Amino acid sequence: MQGEAESVRAANQRFYEALSQQNLLDMEQIWSHAGHVRCVHPGAAMLEGWDTIRASWRDIFTRSICLTVTPQDPKVTVLGPTAIVTCREQIHSFTLDGSSSGAALATNVYFKRDGRWQLIHHHASPIGAAQITPPETE
Amino acid sequence: MQGEAESVRAANQRFYEALSQQNLLDMEQIWSHAGHVRCVHPGAAMLEGWDTIRASWRDIFTRSICLTVTPQDPKVTVLGPTAIVTCREQIHSFTLDGSSSGAALATNVYFKRDGRWQLIHHHASPIGAAQITPPETE
Repeated sequence: MQGEAESVRAANQRFYEALSQQNLLDMEQIWSHAGHVRCVHPGAAMLEGWDTIRASWRDIFTRSICLTVTPQDPKVTVLGPTAIVTCREQIHSFTLDGSSSGAALATNVYFKRDGRWQLIHHHASPIGAAQITPPETE
Repeated sequence: MQGEAESVRAANQRFYEALSQQNLLDMEQIWSHAGHVRCVHPGAAMLEGWDTIRASWRDIFTRSICLTVTPQDPKVTVLGPTAIVTCREQIHSFTLDGSSSGAALATNVYFKRDGRWQLIHHHASPIGAAQITPPETE
């Protein structure tokens, strides 16, 4: 099971790399496209179904000039073909509205299909208040 | 699979009944006692291991004069011996510090062992700001 845990950990790492690279094509590979997949972005509503979730990532990537989300202290539990990963997310974002830094806690659930661990559930919730710096004005 | 989904839905209902009845003995039946179980109460840190999680419920129940958490719009996904339930939680709490009402989004993961669906993961995060009413003073 140790090997499986490492595979799940690698899949989780790829998710955060796709996020920080704002790479929608990689997101399409990482997520399951099932109708039951669900996603909660920090402080936002529960989204259901890949088409809706894909649209939310596209919106986030369109808004972000720069976005880095670094996973910290990932913990992996493998239960047959399902795996739960929890981690702390360190988030830095830079948009036209200014920059912000904050942290979140995430629950990510993966399901192994055709030998590949696919993300089927993402729930992230903010820890503490985000530090927001408005853009400099002339 | 429809029958399994109903069993999971019933397990989820029992979790919220134990919560609203502040019944620690029922919580002990509902949760897996494994070392890997994890729990995030709204706005709080990630807890790991049944002993730590049990202590957190005991603290919440000790603090609460009255607490009701009503699950709304539960969605169930069964993946073999694992099931994910998401729902909205309507929360009303009354403590010595006053009363508060709010809502949260929850991800609950269950694992079937010895024919019983046991809770192995709970992640709840607040939606919007809680409405807090301080106790009346003389």
